[in-house]
Amino acid sequence: MAKVSVVMGSDSDLPIMSACMQALDRFDISYEVLISSAHRLPEDTASFAKNAEERGVEVIIAGAGGAAHLAGAISALTPLPVIGVPLSGSALGGVDALYAVVQMPRGIPVATVAVDGAFNAGILAAQIIGASDQNIRQRVKQYKEDLAQQVRKKNQKMQQIGFREYLDEKAK
Amino acid sequence: MAKVSVVMGSDSDLPIMSACMQALDRFDISYEVLISSAHRLPEDTASFAKNAEERGVEVIIAGAGGAAHLAGAISALTPLPVIGVPLSGSALGGVDALYAVVQMPRGIPVATVAVDGAFNAGILAAQIIGASDQNIRQRVKQYKEDLAQQVRKKNQKMQQIGFREYLDEKAK
Amino acid sequence: MAKVSVVMGSDSDLPIMSACMQALDRFDISYEVLISSAHRLPEDTASFAKNAEERGVEVIIAGAGGAAHLAGAISALTPLPVIGVPLSGSALGGVDALYAVVQMPRGIPVATVAVDGAFNAGILAAQIIGASDQNIRQRVKQYKEDLAQQVRKKNQKMQQIGFREYLDEKAK
Amino acid sequence: MAKVSVVMGSDSDLPIMSACMQALDRFDISYEVLISSAHRLPEDTASFAKNAEERGVEVIIAGAGGAAHLAGAISALTPLPVIGVPLSGSALGGVDALYAVVQMPRGIPVATVAVDGAFNAGILAAQIIGASDQNIRQRVKQYKEDLAQQVRKKNQKMQQIGFREYLDEKAK
Amino acid sequence: MAKVSVVMGSDSDLPIMSACMQALDRFDISYEVLISSAHRLPEDTASFAKNAEERGVEVIIAGAGGAAHLAGAISALTPLPVIGVPLSGSALGGVDALYAVVQMPRGIPVATVAVDGAFNAGILAAQIIGASDQNIRQRVKQYKEDLAQQVRKKNQKMQQIGFREYLDEKAK
Amino acid sequence: MAKVSVVMGSDSDLPIMSACMQALDRFDISYEVLISSAHRLPEDTASFAKNAEERGVEVIIAGAGGAAHLAGAISALTPLPVIGVPLSGSALGGVDALYAVVQMPRGIPVATVAVDGAFNAGILAAQIIGASDQNIRQRVKQYKEDLAQQVRKKNQKMQQIGFREYLDEKAK
Amino acid sequence: MAKVSVVMGSDSDLPIMSACMQALDRFDISYEVLISSAHRLPEDTASFAKNAEERGVEVIIAGAGGAAHLAGAISALTPLPVIGVPLSGSALGGVDALYAVVQMPRGIPVATVAVDGAFNAGILAAQIIGASDQNIRQRVKQYKEDLAQQVRKKNQKMQQIGFREYLDEKAK
Amino acid sequence: MAKVSVVMGSDSDLPIMSACMQALDRFDISYEVLISSAHRLPEDTASFAKNAEERGVEVIIAGAGGAAHLAGAISALTPLPVIGVPLSGSALGGVDALYAVVQMPRGIPVATVAVDGAFNAGILAAQIIGASDQNIRQRVKQYKEDLAQQVRKKNQKMQQIGFREYLDEKAK
Repeated sequence: MAKVSVVMGSDSDLPIMSACMQALDRFDISYEVLISSAHRLPEDTASFAKNAEERGVEVIIAGAGGAAHLAGAISALTPLPVIGVPLSGSALGGVDALYAVVQMPRGIPVATVAVDGAFNAGILAAQIIGASDQNIRQRVKQYKEDLAQQVRKKNQKMQQIGFREYLDEKAK
Repeated sequence: MAKVSVVMGSDSDLPIMSACMQALDRFDISYEVLISSAHRLPEDTASFAKNAEERGVEVIIAGAGGAAHLAGAISALTPLPVIGVPLSGSALGGVDALYAVVQMPRGIPVATVAVDGAFNAGILAAQIIGASDQNIRQRVKQYKEDLAQQVRKKNQKMQQIGFREYLDEKAK
Repeated sequence: MAKVSVVMGSDSDLPIMSACMQALDRFDISYEVLISSAHRLPEDTASFAKNAEERGVEVIIAGAGGAAHLAGAISALTPLPVIGVPLSGSALGGVDALYAVVQMPRGIPVATVAVDGAFNAGILAAQIIGASDQNIRQRVKQYKEDLAQQVRKKNQKMQQIGFREYLDEKAK
Repeated sequence: MAKVSVVMGSDSDLPIMSACMQALDRFDISYEVLISSAHRLPEDTASFAKNAEERGVEVIIAGAGGAAHLAGAISALTPLPVIGVPLSGSALGGVDALYAVVQMPRGIPVATVAVDGAFNAGILAAQIIGASDQNIRQRVKQYKEDLAQQVRKKNQKMQQIGFREYLDEKAK
Repeated sequence: MAKVSVVMGSDSDLPIMSACMQALDRFDISYEVLISSAHRLPEDTASFAKNAEERGVEVIIAGAGGAAHLAGAISALTPLPVIGVPLSGSALGGVDALYAVVQMPRGIPVATVAVDGAFNAGILAAQIIGASDQNIRQRVKQYKEDLAQQVRKKNQKMQQIGFREYLDEKAK
Repeated sequence: MAKVSVVMGSDSDLPIMSACMQALDRFDISYEVLISSAHRLPEDTASFAKNAEERGVEVIIAGAGGAAHLAGAISALTPLPVIGVPLSGSALGGVDALYAVVQMPRGIPVATVAVDGAFNAGILAAQIIGASDQNIRQRVKQYKEDLAQQVRKKNQKMQQIGFREYLDEKAK
Repeated sequence: MAKVSVVMGSDSDLPIMSACMQALDRFDISYEVLISSAHRLPEDTASFAKNAEERGVEVIIAGAGGAAHLAGAISALTPLPVIGVPLSGSALGGVDALYAVVQMPRGIPVATVAVDGAFNAGILAAQIIGASDQNIRQRVKQYKEDLAQQVRKKNQKMQQIGFREYLDEKAK
Repeated sequence: MAKVSVVMGSDSDLPIMSACMQALDRFDISYEVLISSAHRLPEDTASFAKNAEERGVEVIIAGAGGAAHLAGAISALTPLPVIGVPLSGSALGGVDALYAVVQMPRGIPVATVAVDGAFNAGILAAQIIGASDQNIRQRVKQYKEDLAQQVRKKNQKMQQIGFREYLDEKAK
């Protein structure tokens, strides 16, 4: 049984959206991955949204580009928290998707992350689950410490070898 | 039986959307006016969209603001042409609604008019009906001639009295 | 006799605008393709716009970039519905064309589709013709079902092989 | 003990942010309300963020305008889910706050709602709590049904009295 | 015989466009003022554009808002320099008009001034006439000196009375 | 003696700005080409601006990117008409240069062309000179006819061979 | 002798720019206030910029709107740090001024603050002086502590009386 | 002991941020280079900000992209002047970082330079140090003269060989 549903509007979104699954894998959170579409497959999307809760899903992540309605269309039909990932594929470069995902009307929110921010959608799902699950919450804490540690190590390395050599190594 | 369905996401959209009915009245095109919402009333909206065709509707006009999904959500479920009116009520002033209405994905178009362009949505509906209905088409032609005549008369008046007096009269 | 006229401002627009003809071909809707220009060939464009109706054209599609006036210039001179395709070629990336196409003044609408949305312009033309032509309308319905079926199949495949293998296949 | 912490960068944000408390009141979710500031009171903000978890807070809501760092600064120091409300007070009208809240770097998400979307921040907090709390989830469902019912009633009224009279009543 | 034609798309543009005539009056440059419209009165606009040259006009100023095509439509049909004034009346606040006026295609320029910059359009017309007319050029020079003198005087006054008293006087 | 001065802020602007000289060459209008900079070489730029008139220059064209002040800085010091070309080189893609060139204060206009519109700056200079020079004006007319003829020929060719073959030929 | 020069492009900028003097007054930093203009008074502005250093000025603050070149024009002619305040008065609402102030070319920076951020320009000037002046630096520290204390007090008050009463008091 | 601290949010910012060190090297100003992060390493960033002053740092430069809070987070905790460099790496191309860096609230300024303007951040730091250090100030003056000289030389070369040959040489 999946705790998180990751839905995307098209299989062309998969390369970016897969960062989402990568994040969830870090916390051993079970998930399912679906292609649906608010516009091309509206009724399946509606059925999915209405049934997700019963199937035990706790958080839904939806990624779409352009007039990105997927997250909003799902949020309209479920009491579960819905995370929206605006994708940058269109000619307007993602600002269209951002506005279409985040500017939801009173009563029906979408928890929006950065344009192409699929990885963070996964982290946010973990934080939402961690709001009540101490194990996941501890792992989120650990993840943040690891993140801090990584930056610290990079900084230490740069202090040791100097920024010029660091830059040379990166360029290789 | 209504030829045109005018749908809006909230009754607060009615003052702007009523320009739409004003335009349709010019051509004696029958219409119905509904409040529905892609996000607050998704299933009624879906039923409406799926049944509009059978009920004899030929063109649908949908106005919404913010993450304006109404026109797209309807277009997803009907073979009828759907005209979208992006509304300017949100903090971002309508550019959000414009992007959310116009940037539809491949296969599911929305015929988008200007931000707050409800009157033009009515004219466009008349033009769409006039694509096959010679009577309406003649009336659209006449409307355009009237429009031209109005501008011509204003210009003639300004030529007669001069722009300063014209300006004074307007200011009164 | 063409039911749809597809006009573009420059032959450099043809690669993107040809998606429009591809869409019309799906529905066996007859069309003509023209290069004209509101700015470089204004009088031919005006003649075209004024005569289109008499020649039996029912819908006009006009694609242009930058200060994209082609659709508006045509709409000014015909009672037919005009679909505008804003193109993204300029340094401002298409937002200029979008505003120049969609923000038409009261009385003279342009049915605007997404930036570079030439394919959808063709679909919208079919929907407009289908407003009165049951055959075309049925084919639009069928097209939408096919579209839904395609997404469904992609989803089924991903459920079978998993998103990782699906991603690998796409990358090949 | 408060389940939700509502933090705002300035007391001038309170009129808009109070919609947040109004939403939480609907679900009888306990909350605390604080003024803090990522820039003017950074250390208190950091202490708050680090201790929120221990104090039993499950969700944090942070509203700020301009270079709105409050939500991000808190998210950096807690494993709890943080909801960001971009506020529109600055000369750039909220697009600055939206970008500053939503475009968070890999690893540290903020669940962003619409510009000035304080009410929806409260609903989203309820949905997050409802991800594990069946009682709250049921109330969220009920709330959505009430919302649908409200729109339905408005529509029914408009169908009965006609849009013109409806408009007249609203204008009063 | 008018040297400058000032054309505007609607009589509602007259309050802003009259600053243009005010500027031309400074240099005793003869002008005519017309209301025409690229969209509502396309053929009169075309006739005007084609005949302006023969009637002795040397510079054309065109002001319009929204999908502001007036300046471009005129430039398409005359060898005369055309100055475009983007107007801010639409819901998008003038950025639409600016893009629609300035982003003209290769071969057909419009000399664009600031949004609502009608006064500067008049100054620019004077500068264009002054390119070959020494009298007007001298008066443009004088105008610029007067402008400098005005700023200098304001500064001198502020130095004398101090900025606080200066501010108080302005507030009265 | 040069009638037109073409100034650019950096030699990196030369590839785009050279389209300007190409346009002027069409009309055998004499010109000079300079690199100057409002920010890096402010005093030379000021001297240039103040002396241009005496040296017989009639029109100045200035191209710059980013906070593009060159055209405005020159316009401040000459009664001659100044054409500004906003260039797209910066991270913000030219919208910064457009605003910095076009939004000039009351009294000091810059005749702004499209982003990277160097060719049109040359055409506009010819139109300005043609305002008083019948020979140049006739050549501008001829140029516009040639332009029209080119589009017409492309259209004729496409009518003959069909858009598919036309597209194939272009792709080669 | 003034340590800080506060320059503004027009006396209409004084109401907003006076917040700058208010900030400097907090630190007893001596200043002068001038009206100059990069476009209307370019030579006086240039003289001012070149002489400021000799007159003992250490920091220059320049505020302007629209195509806001004042700060850049001054920075071009002085080795002193120049702080730019983009002002929001134009039809484009300040985004034009922001881009024109901040996007300076390589070699000639302007230290840009928020749109209408005149108060912060004063604080930044104090911080710059405080980089070498321990007395001013201590006062900046004290100012920041006062600022923190203010927010803390507001928060304490809200904790005591509750946000509802706090809101009521503010509304009075 | 470093006079300038250059901090960046990620080692991926180093290639652009290294232009900063290049600028400081010109003036033999001592500096340190650090990787820290307002979001991933908030406490180390806070410690750094609080201690910088004591360690003898006089100016801090902070570069970050997206919801770029680094400069603001540091400015919140130090009386030193903080220069912010908005970086363009995100899907929104740097406008997000610009708004997040420059739109700081009253009391806590960040001296913002252009998007990706790391070199200018170094020059600005030199100017700030030069506000009290005559040696550095003289070198800034010299730098500006060198800059002017470079442009002058390029111009002279172009005058000698003509723009066509100059263009050819550049293209090689």
